[in-house]
Amino acid sequence: VRSGSERELVEWLRREADAGIGDDCAGIGDDCALLTLAGDYAVTVDAQHEGVHLPAGLDPRLAARRLLAVNLSDLAAMGARPEAAFLSLAAPAGYDRRRFLRALIDACATHGLALRGGDLSSLGSLSATLTLLGRRPSRGRWLTRSAARPGDSLWVGGTLGEAAAGLAVLSLVECSGRGLPRPPSALAARRAAARALRRQLQPEPQLALGLELGRRARVAAIDCSDGLGLDLARLCAASGVGAEVELERLAGPDARLCAELALDPLELALGGGEDYVLLFSLPPRAKPPATPGARSVGRFTERPSVLARDARGRHFDISERGFDHLRRRPAESAAPRQLLRTAGA
Amino acid sequence: VRSGSERELVEWLRREADAGIGDDCAGIGDDCALLTLAGDYAVTVDAQHEGVHLPAGLDPRLAARRLLAVNLSDLAAMGARPEAAFLSLAAPAGYDRRRFLRALIDACATHGLALRGGDLSSLGSLSATLTLLGRRPSRGRWLTRSAARPGDSLWVGGTLGEAAAGLAVLSLVECSGRGLPRPPSALAARRAAARALRRQLQPEPQLALGLELGRRARVAAIDCSDGLGLDLARLCAASGVGAEVELERLAGPDARLCAELALDPLELALGGGEDYVLLFSLPPRAKPPATPGARSVGRFTERPSVLARDARGRHFDISERGFDHLRRRPAESAAPRQLLRTAGA
Repeated sequence: VRSGSERELVEWLRREADAGIGDDCAGIGDDCALLTLAGDYAVTVDAQHEGVHLPAGLDPRLAARRLLAVNLSDLAAMGARPEAAFLSLAAPAGYDRRRFLRALIDACATHGLALRGGDLSSLGSLSATLTLLGRRPSRGRWLTRSAARPGDSLWVGGTLGEAAAGLAVLSLVECSGRGLPRPPSALAARRAAARALRRQLQPEPQLALGLELGRRARVAAIDCSDGLGLDLARLCAASGVGAEVELERLAGPDARLCAELALDPLELALGGGEDYVLLFSLPPRAKPPATPGARSVGRFTERPSVLARDARGRHFDISERGFDHLRRRPAESAAPRQLLRTAGA
Repeated sequence: VRSGSERELVEWLRREADAGIGDDCAGIGDDCALLTLAGDYAVTVDAQHEGVHLPAGLDPRLAARRLLAVNLSDLAAMGARPEAAFLSLAAPAGYDRRRFLRALIDACATHGLALRGGDLSSLGSLSATLTLLGRRPSRGRWLTRSAARPGDSLWVGGTLGEAAAGLAVLSLVECSGRGLPRPPSALAARRAAARALRRQLQPEPQLALGLELGRRARVAAIDCSDGLGLDLARLCAASGVGAEVELERLAGPDARLCAELALDPLELALGGGEDYVLLFSLPPRAKPPATPGARSVGRFTERPSVLARDARGRHFDISERGFDHLRRRPAESAAPRQLLRTAGA
């Protein structure tokens, strides 16, 4: 077996996946993975491309974990329990594929699922796609986007806009290929910056919350990843309702960090995206979720508009706040870097 | 809905997939696709990247069909019946995604499977990954790589090396974005060149052959996509046997075309790759497959070496003939272009 060859890597991977998970891995080094299935399943596919979702030079370990996390977040939004993963990995010569794969296998094991198969190729920049198979728990229902009713309360699983603030911080630093990058020393709000970076690079999928909501009678849910406005508009459209968000009840990114970056925390909370928290409905008088971090931020309405209301009672439409995957990411402009230089001068 | 936006494309896709297939498409525009499954399933994932698997400027319709074909070939190698497809598509601004998606949905329908979900993003060059779910037919068995025994005959599903010759022809032409590129007029063997181009760009997965073999008692099979030598070595290693190929019985690419391109047809047949035909074993005295095109080209041996034997009875090792996905494609060098210029001068 030639060193650095595909065959060598596949043999290594087969051993690692076996050892790490204690499952057979028919798909690794074979044409297909073989599975015996019975029940209701959810399938999701999401890619992470360098330069679009991942910064150049990101630690392969962090890239692998982020890839898994964004896919798990889709399963969380359905109330599914993760079961199997299938990877397609394309990376440049010299990319530390073993570091990536080892981290992916470990992160899969943490969430109780197995890497069951995949495909390896060479490409000028990192491009990784993961397919996940999740299962409906025997006592659970699928969460859908269409179950919200007027009068239901509107919940989010955690703070919004921190990942978008992290993307702005990321534009100020270089990734060294090992570990999370450190926030620039020019920033006074360093702790908030580090938290925002972590939120951007290592989102935490809300699987436990999704499973808990799946045991309830009527819950609509969506993975809030493109921005509160857009994702809430999708949930509302599928349910045939509108919604009203109380801005005062939103938990957004750190105000001091945003001031230093000349970013509006409210804008980030409403449309920054990549939050990977669940956005969901609960029927009136339902008890709050036991999973910590979730908060009620508004209610669903008969009127189909998707609005925010500020402290003075003024309303504005937020249905277009967020980002569109066929366009550029809004926070990728050079603005924060320039502004920080000005502030530091 | 903004023109050219993700939302607009997803809505269009949901309509198209519904109309084309008559199935519900929970995954399109949703967090996950929902499936109720019962039985034995095979899962495969394969990517096609521009500049690696696909030439720049290739008609999106051909790119979509090739993506499906290479994945179907993996299902064929297991004897699986295709059921569902999940796409991750990243493409540059201005790429005709609808042309790609329409062709993918149509090609899926031809093979009786549905596009059930996916993910869209923007990227500098085309990068598409497909995940397929296939099912074991009720009267079928899984084909595996480990069922070959010494004394079994060795079969290939069709000619070998034509796709590699097509790759060399492809290096001489530009893709116009519409239809199959035409072979250069400087080539005398134009018909063979056109066939080779088609074989490279539009492989035909051998699903019927895979299903037929799955109804037999003991058949080992592999998708021959990386070159006869490498893939046969994989089959032999999994079965704990060796093999001997009779070179005279191989059907390779057109000799006149290869002479013009200064390529050795035997080299292409043994290691050119991308043939997407099945390579399989049949027990001694088993009747030949009913599916046309398959031919017996040798036999499996107790001795574990993977050999070819020429007309004069000389043996040589072919276990490393083929290409490694972590290295460059062998036929991507500039050699054929230079040689053609010399020949045409």
